[in-house]
Amino acid sequence: MPAVLISEVGPRDGLQSVKATMATAHKCAWITALHAAGLREIEVGSFVPAALLPQLADTAEVVRHARLLPGLTVLALVPNRRGAEAALQAGVHKLTVPVSASEAHSMANVRRTRAQMVEALRAIDALRREIAPQVGLEVGVSTAFGCTLQGAVPEDEVIALAEQLAAAGADEIGLSDTTGMANPAQVKRLFTRLRGAIGDQAGAAHLHNTRGLGLANCLAAYEVGVRAFDASQGGLGGCPYAPGASGNVVTEDLVFMFEAMGVPTGVDLPRLIAAREALRAGLPDEPIHGMTPEAGLPLGFQSAR
Amino acid sequence: MPAVLISEVGPRDGLQSVKATMATAHKCAWITALHAAGLREIEVGSFVPAALLPQLADTAEVVRHARLLPGLTVLALVPNRRGAEAALQAGVHKLTVPVSASEAHSMANVRRTRAQMVEALRAIDALRREIAPQVGLEVGVSTAFGCTLQGAVPEDEVIALAEQLAAAGADEIGLSDTTGMANPAQVKRLFTRLRGAIGDQAGAAHLHNTRGLGLANCLAAYEVGVRAFDASQGGLGGCPYAPGASGNVVTEDLVFMFEAMGVPTGVDLPRLIAAREALRAGLPDEPIHGMTPEAGLPLGFQSAR
Repeated sequence: MPAVLISEVGPRDGLQSVKATMATAHKCAWITALHAAGLREIEVGSFVPAALLPQLADTAEVVRHARLLPGLTVLALVPNRRGAEAALQAGVHKLTVPVSASEAHSMANVRRTRAQMVEALRAIDALRREIAPQVGLEVGVSTAFGCTLQGAVPEDEVIALAEQLAAAGADEIGLSDTTGMANPAQVKRLFTRLRGAIGDQAGAAHLHNTRGLGLANCLAAYEVGVRAFDASQGGLGGCPYAPGASGNVVTEDLVFMFEAMGVPTGVDLPRLIAAREALRAGLPDEPIHGMTPEAGLPLGFQSAR
Repeated sequence: MPAVLISEVGPRDGLQSVKATMATAHKCAWITALHAAGLREIEVGSFVPAALLPQLADTAEVVRHARLLPGLTVLALVPNRRGAEAALQAGVHKLTVPVSASEAHSMANVRRTRAQMVEALRAIDALRREIAPQVGLEVGVSTAFGCTLQGAVPEDEVIALAEQLAAAGADEIGLSDTTGMANPAQVKRLFTRLRGAIGDQAGAAHLHNTRGLGLANCLAAYEVGVRAFDASQGGLGGCPYAPGASGNVVTEDLVFMFEAMGVPTGVDLPRLIAAREALRAGLPDEPIHGMTPEAGLPLGFQSAR
């Protein structure tokens, strides 16, 4: 049994931040390869107007493919009720809604205030309870550790926002280092406060490697009890509306860290590394990161049991 | 007052692993820039036959320059008594002796067994007590976390070797992840055992970023009480005799992590980043790594106090 859940966000977070559009068949092949490696939660796309993110215009089709993969939780990002409706129609298992802790980033990213986003979340929750109550609803609180537009984000505001979101109907609320500004001490403090405030509704850590601290921050989160982690194969992705915020944690390196520590992830590292070929096939001109795939597994390496 | 000591190893560990030889004047300028950034311990070279490491043939001259920098502990690597004699004549403040925990690596690196290296350490200690008792003597136990030649290295052997080295006269004994195989759980376990075995003689963590875990491993070491860390500006370096072992922890990223956590390092980050220009001037064709310099300091960033 996996001790941590690695949630792959590359097909959404990664693909939305590269200029090229991966063909639908390549997306499906990549997701199949990720699933074959043992990943059991994949954010496969987002339901936003195609004019805004043409790279993800085929998300409904990708969802239909991903639903065929046994045991996979198919996740899609939705910014509002309209997106949620489309996602539920396509058949996702779980919705994820981004809500910024920074008012400046909220306006830049979705052109709405935080308060408006809490209302949007309430509307999304009402919709899913009405038409698909079995579907999960999570929020990722973006810019929770700092914002490239406004600088520091007060921790009290992050926690107060999480409480409002929990009350508005989210099943889980995670914290995202959208801008790569987090440090391990802050990660421990904020996730500890989050659990104190909303208990088991405390969700995943979505951490970036912008300044090289991605895995150290994941370790810090793990040490205060976080057991779900977003990551992106090849480190693809970031946020196009937060300048300089590129660099999701690399799934391969994160899985290596946990497995080497003896913490089972359910992911087979050689197969995960092999899945990079499917990513490369669909995005031949994009740089694919990752130090473990580059260095190879250490001599005598054994997966966690 | 710094809460952690960042020991810069680039001028030795970095320069020995690149093909080009940095000119003496450039080395001195780089060391001056590192000192100006606040670094107070620098490994400036090694005393080995020039035929083996022509890049470091000018170490005595570099030592004489570095000694002029106020408050700086000038460190040099010596593999044997002959090297120690030359280092003491040049006027180093501290000797560092590498001793492999892996017999296979010991033979490949210095063509001696571990037992022979313990004897060499005893001879070096006798020499410094005789002619320069004020000079420090530390050992870095290399391949302490695994070896690319033999695979896993039994932890009992690492600790037993550290105990022998402590008894043979080393002031401090640190552990080195020469091959980039360490993980945070192992780092915590081994440094905790080290302190249990040799108390205050437990020394620095020398960790690599080969598989992306460098900072996570430093964090793990910090959490079990380690307060001295080797790092290399621009991530320069590795070990030429352990295949695939490149990738020292990047000083800039390590300093950023600690400062962001509120742990004072005594190092000024903008000046440290500026020192990269001195490195680049001396090695214009070498890739210089580091994510914090690439991304820049976060908006509103403040150093630890």
